[in-house]
Amino acid sequence: MKPSIPQGTRDFGPAVVARRNYIFGIIRRTFEKFGYAPLETPTLENLSVLTGKYGDEGDQLLFKVLNSGDFLNKKNAAVTADDLLAGPKAVLPKVAEKGLRYDLTVPFARYVVMNRHQLTFPFKRYQIQPVWRADRPQRGRYREFYQCDADVVGTDSLLCEAEIVLMMCEVLNGLGLTEFTIKINHRRVLSAIYQALGGEGTETALFTAIDKLDKIGQEGVEKELLDKGFGDDALGQLFALLGVEGTFSEKLERLQAAFATAGVAPENEEGYKGLQDLARVQTLLQGFGFAQFDHLDFDVTLARGLSYYTGCIFEIKINNVNMGSVSGGGRYDNLTGAFGLPGVSGVGFSFGVDRLYDCLEELQLFPADAATTTRCLLVNFDAESETAVLPVLRQLREAGIASELYPEAGKLKKQFQYADQKGIPYVLLQGSEERAAGQFKLKTMRTGEERAVSLDEALAELTNQE
Amino acid sequence: MKPSIPQGTRDFGPAVVARRNYIFGIIRRTFEKFGYAPLETPTLENLSVLTGKYGDEGDQLLFKVLNSGDFLNKKNAAVTADDLLAGPKAVLPKVAEKGLRYDLTVPFARYVVMNRHQLTFPFKRYQIQPVWRADRPQRGRYREFYQCDADVVGTDSLLCEAEIVLMMCEVLNGLGLTEFTIKINHRRVLSAIYQALGGEGTETALFTAIDKLDKIGQEGVEKELLDKGFGDDALGQLFALLGVEGTFSEKLERLQAAFATAGVAPENEEGYKGLQDLARVQTLLQGFGFAQFDHLDFDVTLARGLSYYTGCIFEIKINNVNMGSVSGGGRYDNLTGAFGLPGVSGVGFSFGVDRLYDCLEELQLFPADAATTTRCLLVNFDAESETAVLPVLRQLREAGIASELYPEAGKLKKQFQYADQKGIPYVLLQGSEERAAGQFKLKTMRTGEERAVSLDEALAELTNQE
Repeated sequence: MKPSIPQGTRDFGPAVVARRNYIFGIIRRTFEKFGYAPLETPTLENLSVLTGKYGDEGDQLLFKVLNSGDFLNKKNAAVTADDLLAGPKAVLPKVAEKGLRYDLTVPFARYVVMNRHQLTFPFKRYQIQPVWRADRPQRGRYREFYQCDADVVGTDSLLCEAEIVLMMCEVLNGLGLTEFTIKINHRRVLSAIYQALGGEGTETALFTAIDKLDKIGQEGVEKELLDKGFGDDALGQLFALLGVEGTFSEKLERLQAAFATAGVAPENEEGYKGLQDLARVQTLLQGFGFAQFDHLDFDVTLARGLSYYTGCIFEIKINNVNMGSVSGGGRYDNLTGAFGLPGVSGVGFSFGVDRLYDCLEELQLFPADAATTTRCLLVNFDAESETAVLPVLRQLREAGIASELYPEAGKLKKQFQYADQKGIPYVLLQGSEERAAGQFKLKTMRTGEERAVSLDEALAELTNQE
Repeated sequence: MKPSIPQGTRDFGPAVVARRNYIFGIIRRTFEKFGYAPLETPTLENLSVLTGKYGDEGDQLLFKVLNSGDFLNKKNAAVTADDLLAGPKAVLPKVAEKGLRYDLTVPFARYVVMNRHQLTFPFKRYQIQPVWRADRPQRGRYREFYQCDADVVGTDSLLCEAEIVLMMCEVLNGLGLTEFTIKINHRRVLSAIYQALGGEGTETALFTAIDKLDKIGQEGVEKELLDKGFGDDALGQLFALLGVEGTFSEKLERLQAAFATAGVAPENEEGYKGLQDLARVQTLLQGFGFAQFDHLDFDVTLARGLSYYTGCIFEIKINNVNMGSVSGGGRYDNLTGAFGLPGVSGVGFSFGVDRLYDCLEELQLFPADAATTTRCLLVNFDAESETAVLPVLRQLREAGIASELYPEAGKLKKQFQYADQKGIPYVLLQGSEERAAGQFKLKTMRTGEERAVSLDEALAELTNQE
């Protein structure tokens, strides 16, 4: 009888929805201002589209949806006794052909491939939708959560990378976040580092270890790499390279010099293309008059879990909140390859709304009115006053002021409580005395101040968004 | 290899999303202007919450989600051979505990019950989210579609009903729909009609038949009712009552007289409460200065499939489009009863976005710019021009103008095609000549007109939303 919701899912009440919409609104307006257009894909995708795209662990975390119909019915059993003996791999394809969207990237790739003849390339899309993962729920990890992605495919222009930095800054500035670092790196810089170490071990082992530097420290990384066949000389070289310091452009220069010293051949594209790309992004940002280079950190340890990135890699940290990255992304060369369309280069990034929400809450950056919808409550004294204020209610709404008349005549205390609990900032009253005088009382709930006003004065005050 | 999406689901490309958001925006702003606050509930609900709430047919149409883990694995089988012999009723609870949201009403009721001690009543919420039904897909019927609900619970004030009429009109007017009828009826008027027929047959049989009058005509209804035990006299009386004509208030008067003549006792609350409620709604609308009574039709045949309504019933038809209702709703007295909280009265209504979309498309009512996101494309002539226009791009965006620089230097034709196919209304060019003169060319794509402008002139024209 007592209802509940599934583990790892959430109801979002009015105050939380309003605050989440405040964040979504800033992200959406930024994406659109940069020419990204909205895309929405279905919640249900065929499992043939989803399976095998997220690794074995990802496949385990897919929510699978039962086919409709009586597939387990004796009379009409798609599943045989042999299937059951053979286990889930035989049974699952017969009982579940669909799954819930696991991220926004694979559906985007699927959409691009299905619509490649109709789409205009470069295709710039953003997508703000929930995704589902059958992960073990824990603090800050949900089974249903929103992603906000923006990607452009069909061009390898580094203008896109530069604009990603601009969009990241615009969103964070828009949200009032001031202490942030946009980490940027390049897959080929990582490759050049591997090369500079003399070819010991494997790239995968190196990147996996570097990526953990934040968590396990230099000692931990050294231990891991020694185990994986890297020698002491290589490790010395590695931490010399990772230790390169300076501004964005100083780091570019110093790394280039260090690569040359380490014998990375200058004509080796794999070795220098990364630095050239990053220098080009810097030039473009300067062209834009970008004034936030102090927020940009060329972080040679950034690998973002070895995913499918082939070019620039991005990640955002909020420095004054103890939390993982709130955004990340990068360039990839083969997003649509799995669906039979190879060679489509693209670059994209994503915001984590739950983390941004927690940051804003912790730093008290939500504007006071982000949680309010109704701006004015009209008091309902009695049947006569109810009828008398209907035209007033109409005028308030016509002026675009979200307003309510308390639906029942009743105790003032209850009506003020309603306004208070709903976060309504103003209460407008017209008792019989005020009605006779053609006046109102306007109460500002925050201060408790109450003053006599005409309707025009009330409209002026209520329209004025402080 | 060739990817596809599940039957009955849809991808919404940029143009469609923008148009859908145009509709959602008008609905959302209207709900908020009337003091309704947003709620969002999880996509996944426990099947214990969903099952049994939508009738047997509804239960069949629930999408069920497989539990995660190896429930069908031999080693760890939750499902036994006996379960399989017993059929789906034994197996399903062990393999699927969660389902996809089927409507927004049951999750709302569940939310109200779970949060009844924190909520402020009357609680006014709106909810715009997708729902899923494992129905057979056909033209205009999808397995995933959006509902837009607004409900208020915890008051029986008829102000809510009057405001529903106002909101319906505001949304339709806002969308540019002018030929619409808001049908309104009352569950107790239907009961009084049943009483006036002399107590033959059953209420259920009567309402089921009346509800089909539009589809099967008077003859069909007569035939059905004769089969169900209604006599000729009753049928004569019925069609006399259903045939009552006139304005909203004339119908109220004439029905009241007809009920009296038919011997419905005046003190019988069941008989007259409906007419009184409707008269009160009319009075309140007059108090609001409501000027669209010609759109309001007191339709005594409206029963809306005998659902849980106990008071006023609403439905909207668009008269100049051949389509079912685009909105409906009504008052209910026991929404939360199934979850152990009886006696909570409420009233709500819902818009069908897919149908509204089709109406606007058929009547060509979408504003031209509803489908556009980017307003201005800057042409990319070569590396030099690319760098030179970056500050211009920045200024456009700072002025709030969604703008793009084509990311690659290349053929003008291709860049204009890009603008054309993406529906970008303006293209701004600065070739080397213009750059030397500090000027631009601004091309209006719709007319093909091209004129020399300064940056300030371009900004002024682009900011001006015609």
